[in-house]
Amino acid sequence: MLSLDKVFDAQTVLKNIVRETKLVRAYGIAPDCELYLKPENLQITGSFKVRGSAYKIAMLTDAEKGKGVIACSAGNHAQGVALAATKNGIKSLICLPDSAPISKVEATKGYGAEVCLVEGCYDDAYRKALELRDREGFTFVHPFDDENVIAGQGTIALEILNDLDNIDAIVVPVGGGGLISGIAYTVKQIRPQVKVYGVQAAGAPSMYNSVHDGERKCLSAVSTIADGIAVKQPGENTYALCKEFVDEIALVSDDEVSSAILALIEKQKMIAEGAGATAVAAIMFDKFNLKGKRVVAVVSGGNIDVTSLSRVIDRGLLKSGRSSSLLIELIDKPGQLKEISGIIADCGGNVTGVHYEKGNTESVNGCFLRIEMETRDFDHVNLITQTLRDEGFKLV
Amino acid sequence: MLSLDKVFDAQTVLKNIVRETKLVRAYGIAPDCELYLKPENLQITGSFKVRGSAYKIAMLTDAEKGKGVIACSAGNHAQGVALAATKNGIKSLICLPDSAPISKVEATKGYGAEVCLVEGCYDDAYRKALELRDREGFTFVHPFDDENVIAGQGTIALEILNDLDNIDAIVVPVGGGGLISGIAYTVKQIRPQVKVYGVQAAGAPSMYNSVHDGERKCLSAVSTIADGIAVKQPGENTYALCKEFVDEIALVSDDEVSSAILALIEKQKMIAEGAGATAVAAIMFDKFNLKGKRVVAVVSGGNIDVTSLSRVIDRGLLKSGRSSSLLIELIDKPGQLKEISGIIADCGGNVTGVHYEKGNTESVNGCFLRIEMETRDFDHVNLITQTLRDEGFKLV
Repeated sequence: MLSLDKVFDAQTVLKNIVRETKLVRAYGIAPDCELYLKPENLQITGSFKVRGSAYKIAMLTDAEKGKGVIACSAGNHAQGVALAATKNGIKSLICLPDSAPISKVEATKGYGAEVCLVEGCYDDAYRKALELRDREGFTFVHPFDDENVIAGQGTIALEILNDLDNIDAIVVPVGGGGLISGIAYTVKQIRPQVKVYGVQAAGAPSMYNSVHDGERKCLSAVSTIADGIAVKQPGENTYALCKEFVDEIALVSDDEVSSAILALIEKQKMIAEGAGATAVAAIMFDKFNLKGKRVVAVVSGGNIDVTSLSRVIDRGLLKSGRSSSLLIELIDKPGQLKEISGIIADCGGNVTGVHYEKGNTESVNGCFLRIEMETRDFDHVNLITQTLRDEGFKLV
Repeated sequence: MLSLDKVFDAQTVLKNIVRETKLVRAYGIAPDCELYLKPENLQITGSFKVRGSAYKIAMLTDAEKGKGVIACSAGNHAQGVALAATKNGIKSLICLPDSAPISKVEATKGYGAEVCLVEGCYDDAYRKALELRDREGFTFVHPFDDENVIAGQGTIALEILNDLDNIDAIVVPVGGGGLISGIAYTVKQIRPQVKVYGVQAAGAPSMYNSVHDGERKCLSAVSTIADGIAVKQPGENTYALCKEFVDEIALVSDDEVSSAILALIEKQKMIAEGAGATAVAAIMFDKFNLKGKRVVAVVSGGNIDVTSLSRVIDRGLLKSGRSSSLLIELIDKPGQLKEISGIIADCGGNVTGVHYEKGNTESVNGCFLRIEMETRDFDHVNLITQTLRDEGFKLV
């Protein structure tokens, strides 16, 4: 059974394995409330997951430790289990689908795990892990539905409550529910007046649906940039704990998550992964009533690959008018590019791409000119388009 | 005169204004040494600059405080002065060239400063600031060549020495030299055996040249992505202090700085600006002999605009084979795009852009096809190009 003693015990056990991440006061992200971040993206392995795995592993018997542990994950859980096993001097085997990105495979090996690549998808890797557990006697480390894992994640709540007084609310990302179960359980034992809010991705609302419908639901598919919380079904334990101790769960869209990732970069100089930014997104987009409140947002992890990060930034630049793309219909005659690029330069725009395209223009001699530019904001984009129109150019 | 007492005094004065940034152990960036980061990018205002300005302002007489302060900067110094003045309850005026990015102007206003936009370049804004100082009686806060400013930056050394024992070397970005002067002076008074190394951008080697030539040199032009340290001439005080207390200065290229920014994002989930990443770049690219040493790199700031960040990431992806671009010469006949995209998909590449281009092809019916793709690494790029060649396609 989960107990407060277990969470305190986990704190002691984890002392030399995990970092105590200090709350950071965040200005400018959500001006209506007094916002603090719990930066578990700066945790060792880049995610809170190492807490639960490390406590689970520390609690194994010597016989179990002798056999080693097994897990199935392509992400933060894999790295947490690998590091926790290595720090405890025991063997770990991680099953991954063979489609997993090389960078994740390398990171997992880097923390000392053996990696078993399984042909197929996640479910195939999961079945392989259970088969190996049964055959070889490894202990399976569940990513969330395990009371010791949950107790490990609960240590985050102890650190938050120790770090800051008079907290009104703690907002927490929710996937399978291990993180929020640990935090909500712990907070409600110690300071029941503190609200605990959960946030899921709109494209993976498994705990949200389950709590609303009063029974554990399984989604047929999930789709979100917050891949760390793209879980089809909550755990039995985590579902029961969320129902009892979580005050409310809200959903955020991928665009809201992208905005939160950008805000964390620009205002806090911090990288969050999609899942890690969901709590901040919920606060930025007013999913809970937090005006004037003292709020802690858990930034659960920072393991976003650079390609995804680049896409999120590009989308954010486009959505805030800091990059833009014009399509101009031209009569195909010399000197037009010079004139247009002159106008854009005079307005302070910076051209980053130019393409001529044939197409269904009005005149048989016509063509389309696509211009990509860096701009300051939407007013700046409007200034450029208006000036081009004033000079007689036809913007499509 | 600069003295150790002054640095200790600054530490007391700054207690309620700046954050004490804790050293972070960085794994994986420079495996050959034991690397710690001093994360001043997480400092309030996103840069160490607030330390020097805040101490300078706190030391003003009541009469001087009554008149207010003036500074000239489009960057971290402006925000530091603005916040420090606001926290001390006094007025600040920041002169900026009118070409300064809106985001910087807004950030400076956001910290409570009045902004004076001056037509022209930085030098025009600087002259205007001196003119206003003389006319209105403001105190001018120099960005680096001032003993109180230097003492304020020196508090970073006190925090580092207090945080970690047995340090072999501290590596510090150098622009005008205020930061390294404060750190080197302080370190050499307390633990003279600790080496202090400076790093400049290869495109702005003013202190490097001056120290090597034995006299203060002024560059005619500077060009680097590390804009925070693009300074044409060191200060008189900072030059003298560097000559006496800094063990060695090295230069890093823009590509090395970009790699360091990427490494900090991927390994530490941290945003550094160009200048802020130079010390890490110098360590990654072995500019000093630090094998097996315990080293602290000062990450001096994180205020990089998202557009630049996006460029740095894109360049990093290209340089590590995680994005790539192919140019294929085609006979212009139906079905070729289908065949090529099929091959790329089978190899696991992800197409992100396609352009047909006319050009000087061998056949009159020929054309060029440009394909942009996301790839895993250079081996993956080679696999795709080799497969295309094996299928008879002509890569240019």
